[in-house]
Amino acid sequence: MKLLHIAHRETSPRLWTNTFREALKPFGELEIIPAGIDIPEVKLIERMQAADILLTGWGAMPVPAIIATEPGNVKYICHLTGEMRRTIPLEIIRSKIPVTNWGNSPAFEVAEGAMVLLLALCKNLRGFIVEKENGFWHNGSPAAVAQTGTLRGLKIGLYGLGFIGRCFLDLIRPFRPVISAFDPYALDWLEGIERVGSLEELFKNSHAIVIHAGLTDETRNSVNAKLLGLMPDHGILINTARGGIVDQDALFAELKTGRLRAGLDVLAGDDQLPADHPGRRWPNVIFTSHQISNALWPIHPEDPDAPLLSLHEMCLGNLQRFVDGQPLQFIIDEKRYALMS
Amino acid sequence: MKLLHIAHRETSPRLWTNTFREALKPFGELEIIPAGIDIPEVKLIERMQAADILLTGWGAMPVPAIIATEPGNVKYICHLTGEMRRTIPLEIIRSKIPVTNWGNSPAFEVAEGAMVLLLALCKNLRGFIVEKENGFWHNGSPAAVAQTGTLRGLKIGLYGLGFIGRCFLDLIRPFRPVISAFDPYALDWLEGIERVGSLEELFKNSHAIVIHAGLTDETRNSVNAKLLGLMPDHGILINTARGGIVDQDALFAELKTGRLRAGLDVLAGDDQLPADHPGRRWPNVIFTSHQISNALWPIHPEDPDAPLLSLHEMCLGNLQRFVDGQPLQFIIDEKRYALMS
Repeated sequence: MKLLHIAHRETSPRLWTNTFREALKPFGELEIIPAGIDIPEVKLIERMQAADILLTGWGAMPVPAIIATEPGNVKYICHLTGEMRRTIPLEIIRSKIPVTNWGNSPAFEVAEGAMVLLLALCKNLRGFIVEKENGFWHNGSPAAVAQTGTLRGLKIGLYGLGFIGRCFLDLIRPFRPVISAFDPYALDWLEGIERVGSLEELFKNSHAIVIHAGLTDETRNSVNAKLLGLMPDHGILINTARGGIVDQDALFAELKTGRLRAGLDVLAGDDQLPADHPGRRWPNVIFTSHQISNALWPIHPEDPDAPLLSLHEMCLGNLQRFVDGQPLQFIIDEKRYALMS
Repeated sequence: MKLLHIAHRETSPRLWTNTFREALKPFGELEIIPAGIDIPEVKLIERMQAADILLTGWGAMPVPAIIATEPGNVKYICHLTGEMRRTIPLEIIRSKIPVTNWGNSPAFEVAEGAMVLLLALCKNLRGFIVEKENGFWHNGSPAAVAQTGTLRGLKIGLYGLGFIGRCFLDLIRPFRPVISAFDPYALDWLEGIERVGSLEELFKNSHAIVIHAGLTDETRNSVNAKLLGLMPDHGILINTARGGIVDQDALFAELKTGRLRAGLDVLAGDDQLPADHPGRRWPNVIFTSHQISNALWPIHPEDPDAPLLSLHEMCLGNLQRFVDGQPLQFIIDEKRYALMS
């Protein structure tokens, strides 16, 4: 069997570790065409058509729509990562070639990132850093100390209780907070978690809100000025989901005055702040530029012993299922494709 | 029964909440003599001798040694907090008056503090903060990103596996690290934790070291240049225990070069750094001035609904045992007294 990856830009060392390449060998011959090689597109399409399985993901060349109607040997496209609208055209999703992605494999890392930000904000870590930099020490800033809290007994509201939200619960439960959640789509519920019927109720009764929802027409800008206004002073908002869920102007207005606190891995639009944005110096906010879920240290990409990441395990599991004629996991249909963000 | 607290300085609002005062009422008449009142010491001693139980703790007037030989009505001294050598003289420990302290009640808060610092260092949060302040954003600083890790699979070495170490384990286990521990005094051991026989072995095989030991002649300066040198590049040291356990000059030499990272709630000597110490700006270190375990937010000291803290529960439990004629918990004998730091 022929497995093919065509790189569009430098191949991600995190994705293409030696350990992963070794683990692919039992499935067939792997060819990786690096970026920057001068091959006309028509030839690249021929190379694709000669492969049995296309491996895509961060940095992969987009698969041309013609593969939907003239697939050649291509029987399966295994997308190693999540979002794929810039890589896989809708025509292919509609074709008979199954396309899978990393499914729930990054859930742990996202949940861990949310925990880091929640604890850091709750303990006012940036306040400590700032007061030390400014020459203060013990009780240097009584306000900073007064905002230093604990998760024990803290009222935490989860906006979304899907796979990531449930991973997050596994991590936070030993800290013994009081947890409620809003998720109108959850079919089952979890012991010890209060189910609330509206976002208003969630925001009104929580010291900290943690967003684990997807971005849809329904959730877009749903965290608005009215909801934020219901939060208590020094209340905490954690967003490691999607920036578009929050009305950023409304949030920034609250953060600028110092009334609320936030840990923001994601932002509206292109996830960036201008270099001179004053928010960069707000001591009540930590921005992590969509990188809080990274897990690079102590694994060096060139490390021959780098363990398989969960996304690798997802890919290998699906390849095995493909070989065995078993149903693939996390096949992307038109509906899921449309929800991707 | 008469309960007496004499304040030496302003009574700690965290200790003397309304909720706690209310909870004391069933045990008898509580008198609090505030600081700054002009009463000669001899009169204060008479007031002590007229009480059945003395309540001491942060900010309490030291109990004079004469109470050991002339206790009057005093039958029990309930010290609300931990360290007591500045408050209770050895003569009283040697006398027939039992003295108790908060025992294991602050263990959760210390363990939580160690988790906050470990996660923050592992995720390189200060690196993110600094790069944002300096106008960078996504991948602005590749070095900062490369040091962003995860607890999953991380090799963590615990120096000390007493009550706080075990609390810490409860919090960290769901993150699925690989844990080993060194504690020559632990009588029992815990499933899934590798027991190592030396500090050398612990430091050599861990990405992160978390100190949960007490300060004794044996542990003082035990984390020295040799051990620190065994840690891998970007290795993390977390100390929420006692500063004296670490050879601070050796540690600062490693931190100054950026080779290691540290989260330090405690420091050698008086737990302080000079206002102009360059370490305050090291991006690979977070100092929290012995306040990481504070848990003030969202509880305001004047809040009539402030919940009882675990130290209050410990005190109330012991008062009940005293009334019932049951054995008190955490009686301080000469050996424990000598180990206090």
